This record gives sequence, structure tokens and C-alpha cells, in this order.
Amino acid sequence: MDEINNLHLTPKEFEEKGKQVLSWLRRYYEQVENYRVAPDIKPGEIRAKLPANLPMKGEEFSNILRDLDEIIVPGLMHWQSPYFFGFFPANISAPSVLAELVSAGLGIQGMLWATSPACTELESHVLDWVADILHLPERFKSTTQGGGVIQDSASSAALCAIIAARERITAYESNLHGCPGKLVAYASTQTHSSVEKGIKIAGIGTRNLRLIGVDDKFAMHPELLEEQIKRDISAGLTPFFVCATVGTTSSCAFDPLNEIGKICQQYKLWLHIDAAMAGTAAICPEYRHILDGIEYADSFCFNPHKWMFTNFDCDCFFVADRHSLVRSLTIMPEYLKNQASSAGTVIDYRDWQIPLGRRFRSLKLWFVIRHYGVEGLQTIVRNHIALAREFAGWIKESNELELAAPQLLNLVCFRHKGGDKFSEQLLNDINHSGKIFLSHTKLNERFVIRMCIGQTYTEKRHVELAWNIIQEYAKKTTV
Amino acid sequence: MDEINNLHLTPKEFEEKGKQVLSWLRRYYEQVENYRVAPDIKPGEIRAKLPANLPMKGEEFSNILRDLDEIIVPGLMHWQSPYFFGFFPANISAPSVLAELVSAGLGIQGMLWATSPACTELESHVLDWVADILHLPERFKSTTQGGGVIQDSASSAALCAIIAARERITAYESNLHGCPGKLVAYASTQTHSSVEKGIKIAGIGTRNLRLIGVDDKFAMHPELLEEQIKRDISAGLTPFFVCATVGTTSSCAFDPLNEIGKICQQYKLWLHIDAAMAGTAAICPEYRHILDGIEYADSFCFNPHKWMFTNFDCDCFFVADRHSLVRSLTIMPEYLKNQASSAGTVIDYRDWQIPLGRRFRSLKLWFVIRHYGVEGLQTIVRNHIALAREFAGWIKESNELELAAPQLLNLVCFRHKGGDKFSEQLLNDINHSGKIFLSHTKLNERFVIRMCIGQTYTEKRHVELAWNIIQEYAKKTTV
Repeated sequence: MDEINNLHLTPKEFEEKGKQVLSWLRRYYEQVENYRVAPDIKPGEIRAKLPANLPMKGEEFSNILRDLDEIIVPGLMHWQSPYFFGFFPANISAPSVLAELVSAGLGIQGMLWATSPACTELESHVLDWVADILHLPERFKSTTQGGGVIQDSASSAALCAIIAARERITAYESNLHGCPGKLVAYASTQTHSSVEKGIKIAGIGTRNLRLIGVDDKFAMHPELLEEQIKRDISAGLTPFFVCATVGTTSSCAFDPLNEIGKICQQYKLWLHIDAAMAGTAAICPEYRHILDGIEYADSFCFNPHKWMFTNFDCDCFFVADRHSLVRSLTIMPEYLKNQASSAGTVIDYRDWQIPLGRRFRSLKLWFVIRHYGVEGLQTIVRNHIALAREFAGWIKESNELELAAPQLLNLVCFRHKGGDKFSEQLLNDINHSGKIFLSHTKLNERFVIRMCIGQTYTEKRHVELAWNIIQEYAKKTTV
Repeated sequence: MDEINNLHLTPKEFEEKGKQVLSWLRRYYEQVENYRVAPDIKPGEIRAKLPANLPMKGEEFSNILRDLDEIIVPGLMHWQSPYFFGFFPANISAPSVLAELVSAGLGIQGMLWATSPACTELESHVLDWVADILHLPERFKSTTQGGGVIQDSASSAALCAIIAARERITAYESNLHGCPGKLVAYASTQTHSSVEKGIKIAGIGTRNLRLIGVDDKFAMHPELLEEQIKRDISAGLTPFFVCATVGTTSSCAFDPLNEIGKICQQYKLWLHIDAAMAGTAAICPEYRHILDGIEYADSFCFNPHKWMFTNFDCDCFFVADRHSLVRSLTIMPEYLKNQASSAGTVIDYRDWQIPLGRRFRSLKLWFVIRHYGVEGLQTIVRNHIALAREFAGWIKESNELELAAPQLLNLVCFRHKGGDKFSEQLLNDINHSGKIFLSHTKLNERFVIRMCIGQTYTEKRHVELAWNIIQEYAKKTTV
């Protein structure tokens, strides 16, 4: 036995090595703003540096930390740099990271209520808090007929919504017989690609996903939606699902929820609302209007792992009628049966998601909300939006650059007046400098640079420096 | 700005609070073997103790740690107790937990190679290590046409395999037009429920999943499989997918891979092998034979988060032809396009899984394999199996108890000779004592108690005490 015990770290050694990791992370945070945001790396370069041989004998912990420093960190995109303005802000925070440590350290499984009651009950509790913070309709709370659950991502949330919608429209027969092949789903041309992926996975087929056109603000045209639904019904098809977006990925556009919701109500379609990044803004009363119309929704999700200081993965997925979700995804083999589940008095979150196993993820939200308080979260989010507004103002006054979409929250879409090739080269030059990182999209076939402001430690000085760099390259970039 | 900076913890404060969490976890590990393994809790009891009001102002970190102690821990099933013998061993280890801390602390997104090259390259590297440890065929390595990826669970791995199989058999047309409704999949009556769930999600329908009968060791009958395939073909249906299991959930039975593999080869069916728990045993040369026949497989998965000292989530999913997987799951919206992806010179793991976002999970495996070394892992796994063998020997010699299935690895299935009601009551009494935790299943319609040995800190003394408790209750339980 001693031979085996010597292989494991004792609790005391765990604490000691853990302190080394904390001190390593502290240094990382202190230095990250000095790193190149995007690494200057060629494919295969990191792997070539990694110790090639499979270690037959155990190694010193310090070796691993050394390789983290010397090999891994130089190969990272530093999403936690205050100069990271790309894609979306995957903003983490100390309370969230430490909650993840607690979750990993406890190592419990939350698949069933019975496999750790506190995991399930804290999740229901915190998701009800989140529903309150966002002023969601009561029916999205676990105290009524609905409820929230933490998914790994908005992609998985969309897939769950699609499956539940598919089952509801087929009276839960698709699970038995397969998808009937007459179902039609609707999104806009600006909807996130995860909806298309979910439609594929669910066996619906992308030919049966209609991408509805958008207006000049990139929001779905409800008239076009209704026309398409009517056409499909006339053609003998069965419309069943609409995804509306609150804050599209490309430009943070807002689909008109009330109009879309009324159409869904009339035609009895499942309405899923994807507010992956922008949903966080609704914690501020002055931005809550972005969710107006949510009372029509069957499901809704947003990602605290984007803009609410919670490390990935943490997508909050709410359904108005949990039975339609659970009935679509439930499985109950003998080896998982237990008295609490059989009595029907508990929530088994396994039936609310694709995988069976699940981590204790609600700890993260619990730590974050208690550490910051709702007012603290509001203050930080407001500041991000104010910084974006200020940045958009500088773009408006610029001779070389112009806005490519309205700035409404924390995303600014702009381009160079010199044309698409110039904008693309400008972005490449900026990112290649390593000083800041921005990403891109296309809007109306035009190349657009996206500046998304929302990192935990991004302050005004970082946005100012970004602006200086953008101006500098706007002058010196050539195509 | 100061107002906002004061809301966040500084790197120094992060380190300080982190030390409190480490010290809290150290105490947890030191005490966990004294806790009731399964909590004695009624539905709603934990939630009733939680602070009800949404915190508008931020709270002290110490409040949260206090509530963890006073409210959360008493509501947990202690999966890390050395007296936990239920379900499967979700065994964690210090290097894995600390790697999770690093992953959470870095907060990078690994969806594309470009969004953090080191995340993708370490994952390919470590999964190739794992392929070597398990002596998988070369074609499962990223250096050839296949490769491995970390999924959250074997459920998601099975779903990915089903989707790739569905697309391959339909020439990638199901993604476009929907599932044709003539596809038929095969598993055994003992296959994990996640395959049924995957078949539902993929739009195949459970009526098109054939559960093939098993032999007296609960292994799939290849003759029955082939007969069923022929019947389905005669009926005009299209067989496309078989799931074979290496170590079934209920009794750790082994489907005959070679025979099943030859059938799959003959009828051109996708063969997925699920070795969720038992796969870890194959790291020992003397148990590698459990994977004999894997050369026929199109995909294979096992869960280091079960029996390889890696905290959830970490399922290793390997495919022999990565193009069939990637082509089935790929999406490439404009906002994710980048030079490396377009050049086709890198792996984008986003296309190997359901969600888009992904954590830096390979750090966990990297830390674990380097800390223990392959020989260290082998030593611990061998010890678990030896303990199970010894325990099974005690059952065999018992007057009251009998084995319900062969003990082959770390799982012992047994029952009381007094009948099913007695066995069920015996299990309830044992678990209600809180001293140890076992789970159950049914085999041949008979109630069976499962004792699974594999927790990180489980030693012989814990198994001996478990045996004493089982004997004690076997004498005093009444029905």
C-alpha cells in the first residue's frame, strides 16, 4: 500500500502544490497585459517543443509548471488580457475561478438529485436568482412549471430547444420513429451558426432551416418570417421552431421579440431566444428592454461565461415548460433508478441536457453573484457599455474609419473607408502587432472589424491605447 | 474607475482567497472519510437553508466559504470518499484538480486552433500519448488520418459517433435533408442508455435501435446481431451503426469485438466502442486484451474522469477517419474564419464536438500522466482490480451472498441469497447507514448490488470495512 500512497499527493502536498499554482496564476495576471495578445505561432510549433516521450515514470510538479511557462503560455491567445477585444469577452473573475477549483476539488457528480442533492438544489436556487436579476417571466423559474439549468454552451442550449420543439410538435413521436422530415425551422441570416449545427444534429436538415432576411439594422424582418411560414404550410410542411437573437454575433442586432413572438403564438411554434452575450446587459434596468417580448418564449439562454465574469462553461438555459424538455431527453435505466426520482419530487438535471454526467457548475454563479452583488455586476457592465459608446464616438469623428452597424451595447463594428481589402489588411496588421486583438465579420458582404469591450480588467486606458493603435495602423497600413 | 477596480479582486487578493480555498479543500480531504457517504437529506432541505435573498451588494468571501461548510457539504454525496463504491469511481487527483485551476485561471477558448494554438496542439499531443498508452491502432492518432479529442462525456462521444455514422451512410445528405428514416442502429440490451439518448437526439428514433440479446456473461451475441442485420436489410432498411461495449455499466461485461467487428466490416457499419470505465484497465499490458478487436472500430471512447484520476469532464474520443467526423459537424461562419483554418493545416476541435466553445481540458490529462507516469497509473489500477478480486473471493465464500456476474476488473456484482426484496432492502440499509455507498442494477430481471472499487484514496482497509458492514447488514436486515 505504501507504494501506492506514495504515488498520490497527500492533502498537505495538494495544498502546497496548489499554492505554487496560485502564485503562478497571480504572476500571469500581473503580467498578462504585457504579453502579445495573439501569439505569433505557426501550426505545429508548440507541439514540436512539447516533451515527445510518454513519461513512464512520474515527474516533478515543478517540471510541469516550467513547461507551462516556457511552452504553453507563449502559444496562447490571451483572452484575459485587458487588450483582448476579439470575438466576445470570455471574462473570468477570481470568485468564479475559485469556485471552479472547489467544484473540481469536491469532484461530485450532479447527474441526479440523488447523486448530490446540494448540487441540484443550488443550481435551481441560483438559476431562479438569475431569472430574478433579468426580470424573466415567473414561468421560467423552477418554483413554477419551468426552470433554468446550466448548459456548457449556447450551442447545446439551442440543440436542447430544437429537440424539445421537435418532440412537442410530433407529440413525442420523433424520439420513437425518427424525425418525420416535414419539419421546418426559422432563424435569420444573422443567427449564430450553432442553430444550423443543432438543426443538422437533430436530423432536421439544413434545407429545412429558413434563414429569414434582416433589416438595415440586421434584425429579422417579422413580415418575411410570417410570409415564409405561410408558404411552408401551403407546401404541406410543418413549421415548428424559431430562433430569435438578442444581440447577434456579427453586429449585436436585436430581433423584434414582440412581433416574432406573436407570430410564434399564432402558428404555435417553439420560440427560442438566444441572448448569448448581450443577455447580460439586461441585468441593468436601463437595458432590460432588450428582453421585451420574452414572455412569448418557450426557451431562452445567455452565457455568463461571456460577459458575466464566470469562466467557461456556464450557459444559463431557461424553459417555460420543463416537462416538454424533460420528456424529450429523459432516460431512466435501472442503474440510475432511485426513490427520489421515482417519487417525482426532485429535479434530475441529467434530463435537461445532452450528456449524462455533470459538474457542480452553479458554484461559479453563486460565488460570482455573491461576491459582486447585483449592483456590482451592473456597475461593471455599464462601464463596458460606456467605453464602447465612447469608442464608437471616436470612430464617428474619424476621417478614415466609419461605423458598420449601430453601437448599442459593448460591440463596435467599424471599417476603413478605403474598402474591404484595406479593412482586412488593417485588421491583420493590428492583430499581428500583438498589442491588441480584434476580430471580424461580414455585414452586407462588406468586411467589418469587430471591437468587443468586456474583459474583466479592461479600463479606459486600454481602450484609449487600442484606439491609438487602430489610428496608427489606419494611417500606415497599405494594400 | 476606482469604484470598478475595487469590485474586482486584485491578483494578490486572488492568491490570498485561493489559499483559503486550498486550505478548505485540504481539510475536506482530511475529513471526507469520516463523513456520511450519502447524505441523509429530503428534497428541498438544502434549498431551504440557502440565503434566499438575491444579494444586491457584494458579500465577504468568508461568508461563501462558511455556507459551503454549513449548507453545501452536508448535502453532497461524497464521491471522493474512500468508502464510495457506487455507480463508477469518479476518481480525481491533485494534479488533475490543479490543472483544472490552471485551465479556469487562464480562461482561454480552444474552439479553433487560432483562438489558442497551444490548447489544440497539447490536446492532439496528449491524446496521441493516450493512444500509445492503450496501444490503439496507429490510425486513431492525429499523426495519421484519425485522431483523438476530449469530449465532456461518453454520451456526447456516442452522439458524435452516431452523427458521423449517419452522415457517412447517407453520403452527408442527412445534414442537408434530414434523417431519411430508414436507418437502423444496433446495441445490446446491456448498452449504456446514452446510446439510446443519442439515437433519439439524432432523429433516428428508438424504434430503429435494435437491442441485441446477450449471453450468460451479459456480452452481446454476434450471431443474433448478424441475424437482425439481415432481417433489417430484407425489410428494406439501412443498418448503419453498432455500439459495442467494453465493460458494460451494469456488470462490466465485454462484447466480443472481433466477431462484432467482422460483421460491421462485412455490412459496412460504423462500429463505435464504448469503454467508458473499463477502458482504463487497458493501460496495463495484462488487461490490454479487453480491446482486442478495436482495429475494426471507427470510433472508440473511454473516460479518464471515471477511473484515471482526472476530474470530470474528460472523455477521450478517438476516430479512425477524422474527416467523416469533421465533415459531419463542421460549421464555418464568417466571424470564425481565419488563415490557419482556411489553409487546412490545423485541427479545429470545434468541428469534433457538439458545442462551439471549449475549455483547455488536455491540461488535466497532461498533468495526470506526467505526475503519475504510465507505471504509476498501472500500479494503482492493478491494485483496484486486486482489491475487487479479493472482495469477490469473500462473496464466493459467503453463506448469505453470491456473485451475480463474473468479477473481471474493478466491479463486483452480488446479491443476497434471500431474494430480490432482501437484496434491495440490504442495499437500502447499507446506504442509509452512511458508512459506505453502493449502487444497484438488474441482471436477468434480478436485483443486483454493485460494488465498484476505484476511488483515489481507497485502500484495503476501506474495502475490509465495507465487507464488515455488508456482512453485518446481511445478518440484521429484515424484509
